[in-house]
Amino acid sequence: MDTRKRYDPFLLLVICIFLSLIETTLATVQERHLYKWEVEYMFGSPDGVENVVMGINGQFPGPTIRAKAGETIHVELTNKLHTEGVVIHWHGIRQLGTPWADGTASISQCVINPGEKFTYRFTVDRPGTYFYHGHYGMQRSAGLYGSLIVDVAEGEKEPFHYDDELNLLLSDWWHQSVHHQEVGLSSKPFRWIGESQSLLINGRGQYNCSLAAHYSKNPTVNGCNLKGGEQWAPDILKVLPNKIYRLRIASTTALASLNLAIGDHKMLVVEADGNYVEPFETADLDIYSGESYSVLISTNQNPKKNYWVSVGVRAREPKTPQGLTILNYLPNSVENLPDSPPPVTPQWNDYAHSKAFSNKILATMGSPKPPKNFSRRIILLNTQNKINGFTKWSINNVSLSLPATPYLGSMKYGLLHAFDQTNPPENYPAQYDVMKPPANPNTTLGNGVYKFDYQTTVDVILQNANALSDNVSEIHPWHLHGHDFWLLGYGEGKFTPKDEEKFNLKNPPLRNTAVIFPYGWTALRFVADNPGVWAFHCHIEPHLHMGMGVVFAEGIEHIGEVPHEALACGLTGKMFMENNKH
Amino acid sequence: MDTRKRYDPFLLLVICIFLSLIETTLATVQERHLYKWEVEYMFGSPDGVENVVMGINGQFPGPTIRAKAGETIHVELTNKLHTEGVVIHWHGIRQLGTPWADGTASISQCVINPGEKFTYRFTVDRPGTYFYHGHYGMQRSAGLYGSLIVDVAEGEKEPFHYDDELNLLLSDWWHQSVHHQEVGLSSKPFRWIGESQSLLINGRGQYNCSLAAHYSKNPTVNGCNLKGGEQWAPDILKVLPNKIYRLRIASTTALASLNLAIGDHKMLVVEADGNYVEPFETADLDIYSGESYSVLISTNQNPKKNYWVSVGVRAREPKTPQGLTILNYLPNSVENLPDSPPPVTPQWNDYAHSKAFSNKILATMGSPKPPKNFSRRIILLNTQNKINGFTKWSINNVSLSLPATPYLGSMKYGLLHAFDQTNPPENYPAQYDVMKPPANPNTTLGNGVYKFDYQTTVDVILQNANALSDNVSEIHPWHLHGHDFWLLGYGEGKFTPKDEEKFNLKNPPLRNTAVIFPYGWTALRFVADNPGVWAFHCHIEPHLHMGMGVVFAEGIEHIGEVPHEALACGLTGKMFMENNKH
Repeated sequence: MDTRKRYDPFLLLVICIFLSLIETTLATVQERHLYKWEVEYMFGSPDGVENVVMGINGQFPGPTIRAKAGETIHVELTNKLHTEGVVIHWHGIRQLGTPWADGTASISQCVINPGEKFTYRFTVDRPGTYFYHGHYGMQRSAGLYGSLIVDVAEGEKEPFHYDDELNLLLSDWWHQSVHHQEVGLSSKPFRWIGESQSLLINGRGQYNCSLAAHYSKNPTVNGCNLKGGEQWAPDILKVLPNKIYRLRIASTTALASLNLAIGDHKMLVVEADGNYVEPFETADLDIYSGESYSVLISTNQNPKKNYWVSVGVRAREPKTPQGLTILNYLPNSVENLPDSPPPVTPQWNDYAHSKAFSNKILATMGSPKPPKNFSRRIILLNTQNKINGFTKWSINNVSLSLPATPYLGSMKYGLLHAFDQTNPPENYPAQYDVMKPPANPNTTLGNGVYKFDYQTTVDVILQNANALSDNVSEIHPWHLHGHDFWLLGYGEGKFTPKDEEKFNLKNPPLRNTAVIFPYGWTALRFVADNPGVWAFHCHIEPHLHMGMGVVFAEGIEHIGEVPHEALACGLTGKMFMENNKH
Repeated sequence: MDTRKRYDPFLLLVICIFLSLIETTLATVQERHLYKWEVEYMFGSPDGVENVVMGINGQFPGPTIRAKAGETIHVELTNKLHTEGVVIHWHGIRQLGTPWADGTASISQCVINPGEKFTYRFTVDRPGTYFYHGHYGMQRSAGLYGSLIVDVAEGEKEPFHYDDELNLLLSDWWHQSVHHQEVGLSSKPFRWIGESQSLLINGRGQYNCSLAAHYSKNPTVNGCNLKGGEQWAPDILKVLPNKIYRLRIASTTALASLNLAIGDHKMLVVEADGNYVEPFETADLDIYSGESYSVLISTNQNPKKNYWVSVGVRAREPKTPQGLTILNYLPNSVENLPDSPPPVTPQWNDYAHSKAFSNKILATMGSPKPPKNFSRRIILLNTQNKINGFTKWSINNVSLSLPATPYLGSMKYGLLHAFDQTNPPENYPAQYDVMKPPANPNTTLGNGVYKFDYQTTVDVILQNANALSDNVSEIHPWHLHGHDFWLLGYGEGKFTPKDEEKFNLKNPPLRNTAVIFPYGWTALRFVADNPGVWAFHCHIEPHLHMGMGVVFAEGIEHIGEVPHEALACGLTGKMFMENNKH
């Protein structure tokens, strides 16, 4: 008889199951990510010019959050500002079941006052490239932002292969403080903020010099005399030859629509706003504020060289120099600058180029399909207007003026005086000419809510129009909180029911941000299945400040218990105080 | 018989009493002053350079409040700032019975959040020259201030005669925003705000030019090319010859100690901080931040001429030009500039001059006298210190770090976690050498409270010392909320019990602000008779920001019902919310 001990296959199986259970338990313990953050103003030189920037734990941009799909994030946020409130919005995270964690002032919560804390607790339900940012006043413009990356759940795989990844958070930067900018936007006469001084890649740009000065035709452009360690030195993208890299690209610009290109490298677009898209190749990528993309690049070019990564302004006459960094093939020295000039950004007003790009973005096979029919359609006319001489943006002739009491609490508790109880208009006059400045530019302030029956399918037609000046119609990237929507299509001129025939119901991409092109319309569809109150707004910070947004609400009766600290202001705060006299 | 109707004297008396009752009723109706104010940032050019300033109802400085002693003021304050809270402190008004209306963030109330309102209701119990200002962050420096003038009660007379009065609210002005200043003060390494760019008289100064350029020995000083109507044109003091004018002078400077003089005119000082003083004549008047004075001038000089009013910096090496305006004898044209240069401000470090002036201020006959004895004495050492490399000011080695929950609520409701429950130190080590920089400059943050038994007599000895650098000891004007104190005296070096012999118990002036001179001490006495929690702090805005203050409390058990909106934040807000779950 063999004396070697025999293992009972059944016992082995039991042990394996037991071990896997332990592992699962460990995973459960680990799946909560706790961050302790302090928000404060600090000195910083994002583009080489010293400024006051908003930082988190002394960092600008803020720390990157990284988690796996299905995990829970806890961010204990302490406000270390001296006199300002603060909130943080987790852009692209739908906050399923946690509408109070959406981080939108006046909508989802009372702002966190100086010296106070609020803990955001939410689940990142889906892998993707996201970011977070301030959503109070113009604190995003002040630098309150960072990346939020969600990997596939433990044991799952991305539907495409890559060897490593790089992160590119794009933004634009002004030297004038946001406090100053806000006063100008709210003044009579109106003072526009102008174009940004610089474009930042991962919070770094160069204002007084150019990395590519030696290629510049402008003799006044100086080269950058970098010693290393500068806050404004470019964040170099270090890569190995012959690998596949995933570039996660997100734009948190205050204003600029951007185009990104990499010298001699094509990009394969695979993800948009946290949703996989049908892969397609592109030489340059248009990205609007509020959007995110993943692209794959192959480092299959001459490994002895380095290559430019360039970011330029689209859709506004560019007065801001390109943002630049280097794709550095290791082990080359980064000081070997590319031997050709940086990729040229397409003409700012080449909208055909933009539209062609946007139309390539389609859902990948197996993505959820939109309901065939909608139960309610609202048409939102975007116009620039005047109120008593103040310049505003309006939707169906109402300029959003957010209330002091956040909607989530006031709607849950039925506080009728907290905001306009009349429903905002669902359309605009049939005779309105979208190709001309408004015949009567006067508009009104409002803060009514578009209330959707729970679980209904809603179509939104964003209708662009001429601004106040002749022959001006601007880009607006609209961002929806709490949902993704299917982007059913873009069209020219005034939307008519006949345009419905052109809707893509087969493979429309799911997005959270959709651009409207000058004088055009964009059609979206979503299911009102996430109980809460949700902002839907132009993601251009000064435009939102000027009233360019609306508020959606659904399933208020299904909202769970709102953390009390989210309600301790305005009329909800008052209600609790009054009911509880001491 | 005489057919003329005879009037019954008794009936006449009844009618008179009736009429007087009606009059009293009318007076009662009129005695409430209602102001509706909106606080916002706006563009302004206080000194000819455009800046963002804090305004009230579009005005900078804010509107003047004018009332009669005994009347009630209601100010309904709406916060129209975008992201900042706001409060307003009514400087010099003791808030007898209304401690929640004192307008000090973290102490008397929760700040008013953007879009929200708070109504300050308080009685102005005593005639005098007062002012109001922001008391949150450095909003006073940002321009949130104005005058508050209380006349004698109806039917009463001032104890001195004057024909008319003029108001002079003095301030200093920086071109760098307070947000920027705050970041510098809170940074490591510390960045000092520097001296102000200009001095303002009623919110008006001249930065790029001088009204007295033709007298300047500096050829780079330009004359002012004023067309009239400029925001920075001087506020001309128009007077008639051979009259007596009361000048009400108050200083709300962020930093500067000032000296005011009027060419060829002596001033008779008659009031200080809302208390009548024994009249004395002076050629120039020292005024520290937080102080107010009334002086009488006689326009008995050559009526064909106009005269300078000059304001210059004392107690810091002056890098700010004199503030100037014109005493304009009507009907002279204001363009007839005075035929001699403006009065020269005494040498900045001529402290003998300053002390001589301060010592002249004595209570007028009939003023309340101080209790002969004190029941508690606290000695407050003023030092500059370091905490982990951050520069601070400390009192008995504790640098004040205000809590998120205002004390008034947390003390009334016994919330022990709202602030340090240990009592702050009442003295400093006997061996401490006030003539040298601190041997160990490290200090700690704290927010404990000096709690006084109700109605006890408290002595406070403010002890100055050397700052961090050798041979530096600065002026600090200490302001007490909720009370006046008797200023018992000033002394040199380290206070010892023997110095008590020098106290003036006969006619010490009642003040709410007292200066400490370099390396000296100042002794105060007050009765803790006003239930509430009261700030006592250096009135230099950046010094308070750096921790230079303490908190006093008394008679908490006698505080009436605090308006709920003053409690809707921090731990008091939480308490109300938790007790009242829905």
